[in-house]
Amino acid sequence: HNHWVLTFVCADQPGIVHAVSGAVVASGGNITESQQFSSADTGRFFMRLQVETPATRAELEAAFAPVVERYDLDFRLDVVGRPLRTLVLVSTAAHCLNDMLFRQRAGQLPVEIPLVMSNHGVLRDLAGFYDVPFEAHPVTDPASKAAFEDRVMRVVEEHDIELVVLARYMQIISPELCERLAGRLINIHHSFLPGFKGANPYKQAHARGVKLIGATAHFVTSDLDEGPIIEQNVVRVDHTRTPAELVSIGQDEESRTLSTAVKWFAEDRVLLDGARTIIFR
Amino acid sequence: HNHWVLTFVCADQPGIVHAVSGAVVASGGNITESQQFSSADTGRFFMRLQVETPATRAELEAAFAPVVERYDLDFRLDVVGRPLRTLVLVSTAAHCLNDMLFRQRAGQLPVEIPLVMSNHGVLRDLAGFYDVPFEAHPVTDPASKAAFEDRVMRVVEEHDIELVVLARYMQIISPELCERLAGRLINIHHSFLPGFKGANPYKQAHARGVKLIGATAHFVTSDLDEGPIIEQNVVRVDHTRTPAELVSIGQDEESRTLSTAVKWFAEDRVLLDGARTIIFR
Amino acid sequence: HNHWVLTFVCADQPGIVHAVSGAVVASGGNITESQQFSSADTGRFFMRLQVETPATRAELEAAFAPVVERYDLDFRLDVVGRPLRTLVLVSTAAHCLNDMLFRQRAGQLPVEIPLVMSNHGVLRDLAGFYDVPFEAHPVTDPASKAAFEDRVMRVVEEHDIELVVLARYMQIISPELCERLAGRLINIHHSFLPGFKGANPYKQAHARGVKLIGATAHFVTSDLDEGPIIEQNVVRVDHTRTPAELVSIGQDEESRTLSTAVKWFAEDRVLLDGARTIIFR
Amino acid sequence: HNHWVLTFVCADQPGIVHAVSGAVVASGGNITESQQFSSADTGRFFMRLQVETPATRAELEAAFAPVVERYDLDFRLDVVGRPLRTLVLVSTAAHCLNDMLFRQRAGQLPVEIPLVMSNHGVLRDLAGFYDVPFEAHPVTDPASKAAFEDRVMRVVEEHDIELVVLARYMQIISPELCERLAGRLINIHHSFLPGFKGANPYKQAHARGVKLIGATAHFVTSDLDEGPIIEQNVVRVDHTRTPAELVSIGQDEESRTLSTAVKWFAEDRVLLDGARTIIFR
Repeated sequence: HNHWVLTFVCADQPGIVHAVSGAVVASGGNITESQQFSSADTGRFFMRLQVETPATRAELEAAFAPVVERYDLDFRLDVVGRPLRTLVLVSTAAHCLNDMLFRQRAGQLPVEIPLVMSNHGVLRDLAGFYDVPFEAHPVTDPASKAAFEDRVMRVVEEHDIELVVLARYMQIISPELCERLAGRLINIHHSFLPGFKGANPYKQAHARGVKLIGATAHFVTSDLDEGPIIEQNVVRVDHTRTPAELVSIGQDEESRTLSTAVKWFAEDRVLLDGARTIIFR
Repeated sequence: HNHWVLTFVCADQPGIVHAVSGAVVASGGNITESQQFSSADTGRFFMRLQVETPATRAELEAAFAPVVERYDLDFRLDVVGRPLRTLVLVSTAAHCLNDMLFRQRAGQLPVEIPLVMSNHGVLRDLAGFYDVPFEAHPVTDPASKAAFEDRVMRVVEEHDIELVVLARYMQIISPELCERLAGRLINIHHSFLPGFKGANPYKQAHARGVKLIGATAHFVTSDLDEGPIIEQNVVRVDHTRTPAELVSIGQDEESRTLSTAVKWFAEDRVLLDGARTIIFR
Repeated sequence: HNHWVLTFVCADQPGIVHAVSGAVVASGGNITESQQFSSADTGRFFMRLQVETPATRAELEAAFAPVVERYDLDFRLDVVGRPLRTLVLVSTAAHCLNDMLFRQRAGQLPVEIPLVMSNHGVLRDLAGFYDVPFEAHPVTDPASKAAFEDRVMRVVEEHDIELVVLARYMQIISPELCERLAGRLINIHHSFLPGFKGANPYKQAHARGVKLIGATAHFVTSDLDEGPIIEQNVVRVDHTRTPAELVSIGQDEESRTLSTAVKWFAEDRVLLDGARTIIFR
Repeated sequence: HNHWVLTFVCADQPGIVHAVSGAVVASGGNITESQQFSSADTGRFFMRLQVETPATRAELEAAFAPVVERYDLDFRLDVVGRPLRTLVLVSTAAHCLNDMLFRQRAGQLPVEIPLVMSNHGVLRDLAGFYDVPFEAHPVTDPASKAAFEDRVMRVVEEHDIELVVLARYMQIISPELCERLAGRLINIHHSFLPGFKGANPYKQAHARGVKLIGATAHFVTSDLDEGPIIEQNVVRVDHTRTPAELVSIGQDEESRTLSTAVKWFAEDRVLLDGARTIIFR
């Protein structure tokens, strides 16, 4: 038997679940996991199914075709557990890349990473230890930045990349690249209560005496750091922590928050409902 | 339109969701919330639906009758938000009762409490402030204990009680009463890592220097404190806390854990799968 | 023996601890709890001591007088566990007031509350159940607001109030009152990652799909909601929560965060270091 | 200036802090961090100081000698940030070792690891990536187990090892080795509420439907898994997690809990008070 994951979005209306489950039955399948959500905000209906069936992809698609047409489903079908083709962009900070590569090797993160790209060379050894190709191209001016982004897009096309992860890549992505990678570009950044604008937020957080610091993984839109939130975590700190210790504590939260967000995305558990995400954990 | 909550359990098999959603469609209804789970351990299938429909209870039951019969569903139908008839048993500790009554009045806990029973009189005023009847009967020997439990069962029958909550009721419930209230008797107790047997566990936890203390809400079986777990919470402590402070911290966890468990039960979100619970949050 | 709490702040310099502990020894006392912090940011030194001694207040003050003078200590001496005279301001939301009053009666919150003041009458019964006097004065225009704040200041003077708590008091405090109550006026407000400006933040948080909501207890300065942070908590939420449920979840965090902040303040555990707090938990 | 960390334990009695701070003053030093605790259970007094001073070790020891003698201090003096000589024992699970080595290289864990020893060879590459020597010796019978433990003791002596970490080393340590390494042998193990005895606890936790799983780092005594607790963490799970997922989630908690415990130990923040630890975070 094959194990499939199906996700779809459509206008909310009676009968969808009945029609979809009918297609599953017609294909000889059994639903092993199912989650749905009706958005009162946008009037849209979201569903994620895992189905075990002897049917092939073609047979399953044929069974679903009338439902897709009748209810105008934005439909996606994939094999459960298939590694997602993922491009990772880094600068010099190792913690997020290390966490992703360790989990990928340990079988906890269903991604395959054909390439790590960076604007620095310092993480070459780490990628090498995990046998992942690594490219470094300096980004120092508008021309080199444009060249870097052109290379990103060529890699995306050549490797049919499904997800680009900014694992502490410390360059602003151009609006054009944001647009071309919309819905498949994930970033991680630190989070504080309250938020701090400008340079060195950990120093500001220290000066203000915050009691919680955290991290947010989110989709990137051209409105930087303001895209739909995928996952957030915080941890408690106190007045004795130096700014350097806050950075170290924050990095732990960044690593685990980013890896969680990538895992959910790779498992087709993250759907977009306007400015927010529906997470089918 | 009416808003219904449907829960059922049956043997896992293909076609259930299709059949159930077909009954919803036939009744003119729309599914507004849906959760399901296939237990690999027991081979049983669990589902909870919320359905908006113009159908009456009789019409909805008629639409579901063939499905219930064909798939041998253990089926339950109720109105979303209907307050659950709940009997609360207490001794002298106020924290859990206070939390439940405050939330009930604030509209956050869908229960109605026709009576609070106690083996002491000290919480009479608290119940009175919330206009809840209160009875105290001393429990000092086997005869008075049997009389107390007889009174519990009469109250359960007279008020058609659906849930009995042990809100720090410090008497062991007889196996007979456990049996008669099976699946509708919830208790709260403190939890530690590691666990401690015997008297004064907070003192033991202090002596052992535990770093986390918590609370567990669970169904009561005749095997006391070992019934299926509904909810657990913990909070961090350190070596400076006195045993008395640990008690106070633990009480906060007990209050919120018990109120959460009662809320989920009252909303038909708690189903039993052998020795464990399925929680459709 | 008496049990005293001593707190002081001064310029950081060698020898302070030796001098202070010498005064304790001279008074025949023993240090039962001690915490200190040197602020690298401001160059100030903070200390909190609990001391058991047969000495009277006068004897203890005499023992410390030379140290206070030599090191220019901003010094405070109090009896451990003495209830702090606290004025509570509320509007219509009951959750924070209920939590404070319950804990106060349960012996977990060392405050005495000679009066609750409100711009509405709805919480009169709750205060009454705990035998706390209650005054309501409508605040509808600049004149009635000024009258309300005048009454606050008279109460502060008449009852020698040491702390004013805004327990969901939904009026902006005038800069003049902020100034007069500087360092003894505590507020609670909701907190989100990221923060939201303007009306109905829970609705905004819902629209944005935040995964964590929380609460911050802070000193009030004339720069509203931006005073030094005392305590923060968050709790995890997901896309299924309605704005109304977010409000309910947020209220739980508000209650426990405010009560914690008040407890620490009442126990002399909160000291100010410029824009941030030092918390000697 | 040098930066020293001083820890000591003695019988609780008046005047200690004054005497100790007098020695600091006499050495020309300044206290930069200070924590103390009086144990009501054992009548002992614990203190940890960080001191900046131009004094050499000999000068500082001379300044303290009279205090050590008079108050019978169990006294320890070290340089702040000095890497602790640490031997790590592993079997086949990589997660704890990976976390420790990554943090050590990133400057977040003040240890130096002259050797990793294992009863399997699979983690040789991971140690190699971080340039840490690695030895594997099979442990299959009492003779090979005794040989392994002999080798451990020789390494401890040759490298003057200060801490031995069981980073998922899946062999029971003999009572003799426990005894010889008492107070410097740390283990990590999973923790559940309630606890589970016997093989495959994650499977038992799944069957019981626990809602929290966690990890405990503790000193090893000959009473396995029952030594004084250093640190604990838990994370929330639900009924949808498979036993394999529980293992993965539990491993994350194990890694971070063990690394935290090792960091605190290496920074002289962990003191023993009978069956429990005093943690000066």
